[in-house]
Amino acid sequence: MSEIGVGLLGLGSVGSGVIDLLFENQSKIVSRLGAPLSVTRVCVRDMAKKRTVPLKGVEITDDPMAVIRDPSVKIVCELIGGTKEAKTLVIEALKAGKHVVTANKALLAEHAEEIFGTAKKHGVDVYYEGAVAGGIPIIRTLREGLAADRIESIHGIVNGTSNFILSLMADGQSSFAEALASAQKSGFAEADPSLDIGGGDAAHKLSILVTLAFGVHIPPHKIHREGIQTIGSTDFKFAERFGFAIKPLAIAKEHGKHGIEARVHPTLVPKHWLLASVPDAKNALYVRSFALGSSMYYGAGAGGMPTAMAVISDLIEVARNITSKSEGRLPARSFQDIKSATIYPDENVTSRFYCRLSLRDKPGVLGKITNILGEYSVSIAQLIQEDRTPQETAGEFASVIVLTHATKVLQFKKAMADIENLEDCLTKPVVLRVVQ
Amino acid sequence: MSEIGVGLLGLGSVGSGVIDLLFENQSKIVSRLGAPLSVTRVCVRDMAKKRTVPLKGVEITDDPMAVIRDPSVKIVCELIGGTKEAKTLVIEALKAGKHVVTANKALLAEHAEEIFGTAKKHGVDVYYEGAVAGGIPIIRTLREGLAADRIESIHGIVNGTSNFILSLMADGQSSFAEALASAQKSGFAEADPSLDIGGGDAAHKLSILVTLAFGVHIPPHKIHREGIQTIGSTDFKFAERFGFAIKPLAIAKEHGKHGIEARVHPTLVPKHWLLASVPDAKNALYVRSFALGSSMYYGAGAGGMPTAMAVISDLIEVARNITSKSEGRLPARSFQDIKSATIYPDENVTSRFYCRLSLRDKPGVLGKITNILGEYSVSIAQLIQEDRTPQETAGEFASVIVLTHATKVLQFKKAMADIENLEDCLTKPVVLRVVQ
Repeated sequence: MSEIGVGLLGLGSVGSGVIDLLFENQSKIVSRLGAPLSVTRVCVRDMAKKRTVPLKGVEITDDPMAVIRDPSVKIVCELIGGTKEAKTLVIEALKAGKHVVTANKALLAEHAEEIFGTAKKHGVDVYYEGAVAGGIPIIRTLREGLAADRIESIHGIVNGTSNFILSLMADGQSSFAEALASAQKSGFAEADPSLDIGGGDAAHKLSILVTLAFGVHIPPHKIHREGIQTIGSTDFKFAERFGFAIKPLAIAKEHGKHGIEARVHPTLVPKHWLLASVPDAKNALYVRSFALGSSMYYGAGAGGMPTAMAVISDLIEVARNITSKSEGRLPARSFQDIKSATIYPDENVTSRFYCRLSLRDKPGVLGKITNILGEYSVSIAQLIQEDRTPQETAGEFASVIVLTHATKVLQFKKAMADIENLEDCLTKPVVLRVVQ
Repeated sequence: MSEIGVGLLGLGSVGSGVIDLLFENQSKIVSRLGAPLSVTRVCVRDMAKKRTVPLKGVEITDDPMAVIRDPSVKIVCELIGGTKEAKTLVIEALKAGKHVVTANKALLAEHAEEIFGTAKKHGVDVYYEGAVAGGIPIIRTLREGLAADRIESIHGIVNGTSNFILSLMADGQSSFAEALASAQKSGFAEADPSLDIGGGDAAHKLSILVTLAFGVHIPPHKIHREGIQTIGSTDFKFAERFGFAIKPLAIAKEHGKHGIEARVHPTLVPKHWLLASVPDAKNALYVRSFALGSSMYYGAGAGGMPTAMAVISDLIEVARNITSKSEGRLPARSFQDIKSATIYPDENVTSRFYCRLSLRDKPGVLGKITNILGEYSVSIAQLIQEDRTPQETAGEFASVIVLTHATKVLQFKKAMADIENLEDCLTKPVVLRVVQ
C-alpha cells in the first residue's frame, strides 16, 4: 500500500509532537493501517529556526500554499491557530481536495458551517479531535460512542488554566494573582490570560460540544460566562465548609422545546462528585444521557503531546478512510445543516447560589440582607457570620456567607442588585453558582 | 438507501433495550447513517413469553439458524451469552457472510483467535463495545482514540457487583454477607456470585483489555486473582485511617521484554485518586500512556440500557461500513495473529501491602511478627494495635494492622507463610495490596 502523505501547517509544540509520534510509532501504525503515514511537507513561519524533531524526508517551506498544492499531501493538518489565516488555508485545502485535520477550536466554533459545507461539496473529511480537551477522545466518544443515545446534560472542566489556578488556590497557599503567575510560569496560561480566566476559551469549546451533543449551534459569544478572577482564598474555605469544591465548569442542558441552556462559570461542586477531584490543569467531561446514565471522561486538557496524539488519531482515521476508499464515510451531520439553537435564557435557569458579602459591621445590617432575600423569594439554606478577622476589623467590615436553596437566576440577580445598592454593602458581592 | 437488517440472538434485557433504542431513535440514526437500521428477525428461547417491546415488523423464531440464514439480516447480534452455543452460532454467522456484534466477554476472552480469524477469512466485521464496561465506550477509545499512543498501564474497576459490595461496606453499615445479599436483591449479583466476587469476571474483561492495550493475549485463567470475600468492615476503617479506599481493581502493566503483569484483586487506593471515588456499581478505567499521560473513563458497568447502547453504537459502525462499502475497514489487528503474552510473574511484582493479623494477646507476640517481617526484608511503614474491642477480648485476641513499604510479592508471601504458622496467629491474615 502506498504512503499517505501529510502536510503540516505550523511546527510548534503540537506539530513537533505529531512528527515525533508518527516517527516513533511508524511500524505500529503501518500494522494497524496497512500503509505508512508520513509527514512529507511542513510550512513554518521562520525557516531559520533550529528544529529538534526528526525532519529527514520532510520538505520545509514558509509558503502554506506549497503544502496545500503538494500532490504528495493527501491530508492537511492545520496547527497555526487563530481564525483568519487558518480559515483561508483550511478552505483552500478543502477546495484542493485535501482532507483536513485541525485542533483549532476557535475556527470550528466560529466557521463550522462554511468549513463543513466546503468539505461536503468537495467530498473530503474534516476531523478535529484535538480541538476540545486534547488528551480526552471526547469528540469521537460523543460522535460515535454515544451516537444513538439522547444526551441530557454535559458538565465539563474544559479550561486547564482555570482549573490549575483554582486547584492551587484550593490548597490554601496562593491568592488568585499568585496562582495566575504560577500558571504563567508553568506555561499553562498565556501572557494575556483573559480568554482562559474570563471563560472565553471554555465558551468556544462548549459551543463545539453543544453541537455534538444536541445537534444545534450556539455561537460562543451567546454563551453566558463568568470569570474566575473574583474568587478569593476565603471562598474555598467556606465552600469546603458547606461540602463543596470550586471548579471552573462549562455546562449545557437540554430543555426540550424551550431550548438549550449553556453557560461557563466557576461553580460549587459537591465534594463527592468526581468532577470535584479533577486536579491541576486536567480536564474532564461529565455526561448525563438517557441510556448510559452518567459517564465521565478525564485526561490532559492540552499540551503538545496530548494534542498531537489527538491529531494523530484523526490522521489514522482519515488515512483509514483513504485506504478503504470510504472518504466522507462519516457524514459531517453534526456540523452540516445545523440549526441555530433556541437559547434557554440564563435568567430562567434555576440554581442554588453561594454569595459572600462584605458588610458594615453594625446592628440591623444582617436584617436588611435577609429581608431583601425574602422579598425576592430567595430562601436561605445556610448562613455563616464569624468573629471578625484582624483584616476585617481593620477594614471595619464583616463577611457574611450565604448559601441559598434553588432559585431563579433572575430573582437572585434582582436581590443582589438591591443588596449591592445598600450603603452598608461595602464591596461587590462574590457570587458563585452551585452545580446540580 | 435500503434498510440494513439486524438479527438478534436473544431477547433479554439487552436485546429488548436494542429494539427499544433503535425504534425510538430511528430518525436520528437515519440522519446520521443515511439508511434505516432495523431489527428484522429475533431468536428467542421461549416463543410463548409475553414481550413488552415494539415488535412490529419483526419476525420471531426459536431457531437461531433461521436468523443467521435470513437474507434480510446483514448483521447478527449475539446476546445469548455463554461460550458454547454462542461460539457455534457466531462462527456460523461469520461463515454465512454476516457481520457480528456481540457483548459476550467470555466468548471473546476465550475464543478471540478463532472468531477474528473466521471474520477475516470471510471479509466481515466483529464489533464488541458491550463486552467490557457497557456504559463506557472503552473498546473504541483504546482501539482508535489511543491508536498511536503507547499504553503503560491500566487500572480498572470492571466488576460492578464487587464495587457495589465494597461501596456498601465502606459506608460502615453492612457486612460482606449483608452487602452481597443487597447486591443480589438489587439485581446486580447473580444467584451464584462467585464469578463476580472471586474476580473471574474481571479477569475475562482484563484479558480483552490487555489485548487491546498491549497487543498480546493472556488467557483469563492465567491472570492472578484474589476475591473480595475475606475483607471485613474493620478493614475499611483502618484503610481510611491510612488514607485509602478499598476498590476492586483489575490491573495490567507493561514491563517491556519482561512481559505483562496482569492481576485482579481488592486494592487500597489513595483517597485522592479518582478511582477511589467511583461509587456503587459504576465502572471506570484509568489509563497511563506515553503521550496522553493519565486519562480515565467512567460510567455504568452493565445493565440492559447501557449495554444496549454500546451494542447500537457498534451496529451503527458496522452499518456505516456497509453503506460506505468499507467492510473490514478496521483491521482486526488487535485480535488477529496476536501472540501469547510473556506473563510477568506475580511473585516479582513490587507492592506495598496492608495486612490485618489476629494475634494471641500476650507478651512477645508482636516481636515475633516484626522479626519475621524483618527477616524477609519487609519494611513496616505504619502499624496499629489498639485497645481490644469487647469482641476481641471475648475471643482473647488482638488485631494488629500493618502497612508495609514496597516489597516483592514473593518476599511478603514467605513472611506471611511464617506468620501464619505461628501458634499465636489465630486466623488467616487478611492481606490487601496497595495500588501504585
